[in-house]
Amino acid sequence: MADSEKLSTDPYKGVRDFYPADWARMRAMFSCIRETLNRYGYEEYNASPLERAELYEAKTSEEIVNEQTYTFTDRGDRRVTLRPEMTPTLARMLAAKRREFPLPIRWFSIGNRFRYERPQRGRLREFYQVDVDLLGAVNVPHTDVEIISIASAILKSFGATEDDFTIRVSSRALLNAACAAAGLSEDATRSYLRLLDRKAKMPADEFATEVHNLTNIDPLALIEDGTAPEVNSEKQALKTLLDVLSKRGVGNAQFDPEITRGFLYYTGMVFEVYDTNPENTRALFGGGRYDKLLSLFGGDQIPAVGFGMGDVTLADFLETHGLASKVSSAPILFLGTVLPYDQCAVEIEAVADKIRVQGISVFTNIVNKHIGDQVKEANRRGIPYFAAVGSDEIDSGTLRVKRLATGEERALVLSDVSTFCIH
Amino acid sequence: MADSEKLSTDPYKGVRDFYPADWARMRAMFSCIRETLNRYGYEEYNASPLERAELYEAKTSEEIVNEQTYTFTDRGDRRVTLRPEMTPTLARMLAAKRREFPLPIRWFSIGNRFRYERPQRGRLREFYQVDVDLLGAVNVPHTDVEIISIASAILKSFGATEDDFTIRVSSRALLNAACAAAGLSEDATRSYLRLLDRKAKMPADEFATEVHNLTNIDPLALIEDGTAPEVNSEKQALKTLLDVLSKRGVGNAQFDPEITRGFLYYTGMVFEVYDTNPENTRALFGGGRYDKLLSLFGGDQIPAVGFGMGDVTLADFLETHGLASKVSSAPILFLGTVLPYDQCAVEIEAVADKIRVQGISVFTNIVNKHIGDQVKEANRRGIPYFAAVGSDEIDSGTLRVKRLATGEERALVLSDVSTFCIH
Repeated sequence: MADSEKLSTDPYKGVRDFYPADWARMRAMFSCIRETLNRYGYEEYNASPLERAELYEAKTSEEIVNEQTYTFTDRGDRRVTLRPEMTPTLARMLAAKRREFPLPIRWFSIGNRFRYERPQRGRLREFYQVDVDLLGAVNVPHTDVEIISIASAILKSFGATEDDFTIRVSSRALLNAACAAAGLSEDATRSYLRLLDRKAKMPADEFATEVHNLTNIDPLALIEDGTAPEVNSEKQALKTLLDVLSKRGVGNAQFDPEITRGFLYYTGMVFEVYDTNPENTRALFGGGRYDKLLSLFGGDQIPAVGFGMGDVTLADFLETHGLASKVSSAPILFLGTVLPYDQCAVEIEAVADKIRVQGISVFTNIVNKHIGDQVKEANRRGIPYFAAVGSDEIDSGTLRVKRLATGEERALVLSDVSTFCIH
Repeated sequence: MADSEKLSTDPYKGVRDFYPADWARMRAMFSCIRETLNRYGYEEYNASPLERAELYEAKTSEEIVNEQTYTFTDRGDRRVTLRPEMTPTLARMLAAKRREFPLPIRWFSIGNRFRYERPQRGRLREFYQVDVDLLGAVNVPHTDVEIISIASAILKSFGATEDDFTIRVSSRALLNAACAAAGLSEDATRSYLRLLDRKAKMPADEFATEVHNLTNIDPLALIEDGTAPEVNSEKQALKTLLDVLSKRGVGNAQFDPEITRGFLYYTGMVFEVYDTNPENTRALFGGGRYDKLLSLFGGDQIPAVGFGMGDVTLADFLETHGLASKVSSAPILFLGTVLPYDQCAVEIEAVADKIRVQGISVFTNIVNKHIGDQVKEANRRGIPYFAAVGSDEIDSGTLRVKRLATGEERALVLSDVSTFCIH
């Protein structure tokens, strides 16, 4: 034990420390999301962030596997990856107990994901994500509609209105049909989709040149002009989807053929949610349909649609629109001591316990400190109520409780403290 | 994307998948603990499981660092460790923002920890742990008493009585004093403590031989006979601690000089909680005082006392004593459909939404299925209430809701559904 050695206090690069106020904000955000998802009948699952590395090698987008995973070899020579996303884990878990769960499955998970990225605004090496999935129901477009509706309901549950965000919807089936109509091979289609995914980040002429290197007919033009029947039929399916969405009260969704999503495994509808604030141009989050993923484990294909919502972009969005909830991690009541704590610890804690059983968070003054300093300390800690315990209070079983913000004071028998101390 | 390749559905060795029922149990367990800790004025913090490897090299017990950490090198050549315990992270976080937080600090954290162990009952490579710490108050024994009281309060909050568990308390100060009185050097003291930590797992004669290799006078004998004044003074301090604990309503704590705890950083009181069930001989959890840990980051020493409680041993204990909470992750109401969902999706979801706003978790039947099969499905899913929506219900805005366990049925206007559907 090298006591004299000084260590750095920084966290590992690209990850965050959550002090109580930070963690209370995160927990409040997740609670709000969890409540919405529960109301839609979704059940929460979880798993270890440690996964066998091969789980990602077949399915995740190439960029993530090649450049962004944390993969290492354990002491038993097993290759382990820190999960960069949840969907492969969900697919694995379902495949493992396929017969135990009746379809459809409505599940969600909230937890951390890891990507080795160059740290920058909104991009961390560890972020939290909510993953929501509806599996095993073939009812398109209604399953797609449900997933997009829930994405919208979550933002609205924070107080966002349809003026604050838009939902851009497209479909891999549409893009694939357009690529096929343009004569692209499967490989060229994949290259085209990767290119389209980067379109917003590159100059228009560069995009045009790169498209031209792949094909003479830009699939996007085919989607627009509507000459190919397979393309039109997929366009019509999307129109129906948007129509149902609108009837379900989601009025800010629109068709955008340039939405592709990065992951290779999408097969149908894809969507991304954008902030209407023009300063925030990156997608807030998104998702889509991935009907083939589960068959990687053998067994039947299971239709699946879902989305993932990261904590950093969501918190930024809420902050920008003044929707971030004001939460405090502080206790409710500072129980000060007139006598030194040592002289009456048992009696003070007996008083505290009578208040704790009412569900009130009580912070007792366990150190010797002047009573005026204790009030100051309560304020500094953000504790909203203060009461001091001396012999009188111990004998009488009553307490004068003060609401520090207003100075209002109330004499209360101990069992009534919760009638005055409100969160 | 290699669709034909079949992957194993097993999780990585030694970690768990949490299906909704499993995760609901974990969440219920943590909620109960969180509530108790909040009542004592403790605030929750968190951090990434990724830590710089050097954080552990100076402080954690040698066994853990040498054999049990997950340590790897990232793509930027930084050595990273998956946290095997939370205390070094807490120490780092406090050292980083030492001036921002008034002392004392009452904090806790609930999260996963990682150790590369041979998987066996109660030993996983990823487990969850609650870490509770009281820092910056020198008020011994009252701070020690508070920490042990909280450990006891948590078990009691699950319904455990003092017949179900015992708290064995000792002190590193006492053990150090006894080792010094026995003439042991600092190194020999460390070896002796390591030996004592393993005593319960080894034959008595082997222990005696190994002690004899270190010293002619067994420090345990010195503690018992009470001839050395420094030893007696530490024994007296422990007696006072146990006396205050008993007055605080913790009647099942007792002195046990063989309690040492594995970690090198303990400096004072140490305790372990044991199941009274003789079949469960391993400690449930434990903790102690570690006054020097924070000075590793420079700056002043901060007195600190705390404990860590792992999820696996706790869940086993609750299970054994019939205290595990019965929780369900299932939604509350199965909203069945008389007409095919496709034909009235918008109307059905409008009905569902009117129930969801009452805080009720509604699972809508999104697939085409006979109504009798929908009732069966609700039962299979563990959903306690059932209602079917047809044209009549859509027109009238009322619903017949059935409690499946009893068959009791109630006709309700939509806005009253929550008066009948109780969790």
